[in-house]
Amino acid sequence: MRTTTAWHADPEGLRPASLERRELRPDDIAVRVDYCGLCHSDLQTLHDHDGHSPLVPGHEFTGVVIEVGPEVTAFSVGDNVAVGNIVDSCGQCPMCRAGQENFCHSFPTLTYGGRDRVDGTTTLGGFSREYVVREDFAYRLPVGLDPAAAAPLMCAGITAWEPLRALEVGPGARVAVVGLGGLGHLAVKFAVALGATTTVISRTQDKAEDAHRLGAHGFIVSTDPAQMADARENFDLVIDTISAPHDLTEYLKVVGLDGTHSVLGYLGAVTVEVTDLLIGRKKLSSAGSGGRPATAEMLQFCADNGVVPEVEVLPSAQVDRALDRLERNDVRYRFVLDMSDLDGAV
Amino acid sequence: MRTTTAWHADPEGLRPASLERRELRPDDIAVRVDYCGLCHSDLQTLHDHDGHSPLVPGHEFTGVVIEVGPEVTAFSVGDNVAVGNIVDSCGQCPMCRAGQENFCHSFPTLTYGGRDRVDGTTTLGGFSREYVVREDFAYRLPVGLDPAAAAPLMCAGITAWEPLRALEVGPGARVAVVGLGGLGHLAVKFAVALGATTTVISRTQDKAEDAHRLGAHGFIVSTDPAQMADARENFDLVIDTISAPHDLTEYLKVVGLDGTHSVLGYLGAVTVEVTDLLIGRKKLSSAGSGGRPATAEMLQFCADNGVVPEVEVLPSAQVDRALDRLERNDVRYRFVLDMSDLDGAV
Repeated sequence: MRTTTAWHADPEGLRPASLERRELRPDDIAVRVDYCGLCHSDLQTLHDHDGHSPLVPGHEFTGVVIEVGPEVTAFSVGDNVAVGNIVDSCGQCPMCRAGQENFCHSFPTLTYGGRDRVDGTTTLGGFSREYVVREDFAYRLPVGLDPAAAAPLMCAGITAWEPLRALEVGPGARVAVVGLGGLGHLAVKFAVALGATTTVISRTQDKAEDAHRLGAHGFIVSTDPAQMADARENFDLVIDTISAPHDLTEYLKVVGLDGTHSVLGYLGAVTVEVTDLLIGRKKLSSAGSGGRPATAEMLQFCADNGVVPEVEVLPSAQVDRALDRLERNDVRYRFVLDMSDLDGAV
Repeated sequence: MRTTTAWHADPEGLRPASLERRELRPDDIAVRVDYCGLCHSDLQTLHDHDGHSPLVPGHEFTGVVIEVGPEVTAFSVGDNVAVGNIVDSCGQCPMCRAGQENFCHSFPTLTYGGRDRVDGTTTLGGFSREYVVREDFAYRLPVGLDPAAAAPLMCAGITAWEPLRALEVGPGARVAVVGLGGLGHLAVKFAVALGATTTVISRTQDKAEDAHRLGAHGFIVSTDPAQMADARENFDLVIDTISAPHDLTEYLKVVGLDGTHSVLGYLGAVTVEVTDLLIGRKKLSSAGSGGRPATAEMLQFCADNGVVPEVEVLPSAQVDRALDRLERNDVRYRFVLDMSDLDGAV
């Protein structure tokens, strides 16, 4: 086994301790994790955790290849790479064959809390100094992308990217992004870079300046009925990044004819009146994570178009503070942990 | 006023009585109603009726123009026409300008139970021997379409047609139709005529033979888990014509990547798990009725392709019996009332 260091969840919070990674299989690479983003789902997983079973969060990270298995062809030692929230899939089912490994029929192996397809162990995530992964689920980090800022592209980024691409958003499209957080601010940047007329919908005026700075062309305060009424049927795509349960009724009203409301931030049950879909033939949809081709495409798009998440980089020792602030939505717009302080931490 | 005869709802059921229609406005035509289809919504409206306020159901009918207003340009006396479930709209809003008068921002005027936009009276429907309508909301019945069989095209037909056209269903598309009733059998005929590979999903094997006779290529019994599992992600579009509340979970599983589940038969609230949409980026949608361009297009398509509803034509005096049988789903596949027996009925 290979020994590294990681932030382990226990009843008192996260604490640094050593962690064993598997020896490299023929198609594995070992990645020195330099930066790992903090996702809302990390927070949720820690809340739900029993405090005892093994848990190392983190599923959007970048780093450098430090060793490769004998059959690895895509990477060499020293390559900059990125890894997202899935690290394996069956490779055989129609979804895998379609390049949508995130929808694998036998469920993709998650980067943490998943079950390794070879040895059945529970996967442990990127809040660690080293990660061992099949080369197929690592992505070359294109030249020009800052490794710290790029980390959140691997979960928040691809989640916002996939619905935009599936709906072929481009010049002329009218996109609204509801909620301007980690997911939302990337949706705005992508939509703008794809050429769409992009509007942010937020509960208060607070983020209007930021929205425009990010490139948004419009800003709507959702709690102002007049502004929402003015936006009736104005959008081809509404990207809804609100992470709490919420009523979709008012948002569906701003979806235009044959338009789509894509729920990205909340993954529970939602109730809609069919007539709210009928009038305008509107669609309710969702997306999450992405397949390998789309992930590679998104990274290249970001490098080509200068799209980069807005991040606050903290030493990983401040992970608890970052989690507290994330819970209060006190971050613009994504925390990234610098893992280098794990060297010699235990 | 013009005097005709109609089936009026009262506490004991429907009874024939005289009915006054407005004198023709400049852009009105008077239609002798020959055939009127029986829609599930007629049944619902009669159930919900207080028994006292004026109610004449019927919103899918065909007949002959018997008089035209002085400014009518599209029709002459003697023309065969068809009228559906909307008879006016504002004409000014974005939806009307887009040819989607069914989604008019100030709500379209319904053929019965609506409020006339000029005189404010309650509209009374097609279970009558004459109807007066703005020429813009009457459609020329193409040569070759049987007027009795064509009547259901004006509500069931256009409701099934719109989602197929909005999603550009054609050769290569994989369509499933859930429920083989008035709406469903038309969805099957349309999908087949559009070139889609078409499958019927039904609770029992009973309608398998009919489904194939209507042109369906496949048949799935929804209560057989093995058959449903075999159909996992098999369809680009699932047209759901079930009229009662039902769980969508099992049906969403047969929707393929980026596919759509369109709820046409039930117009209440539905609850879905967002993850059931996320996995496969599936869409939940609906449709109902249609705009003027799509309605005219559908009628011509039916004439060109020999698509015609399967109907059971009854004298209108048997309307109560037809309603009873409709309630028990004892019809293959749509009742049409022959209104000629209203001549001299009162």
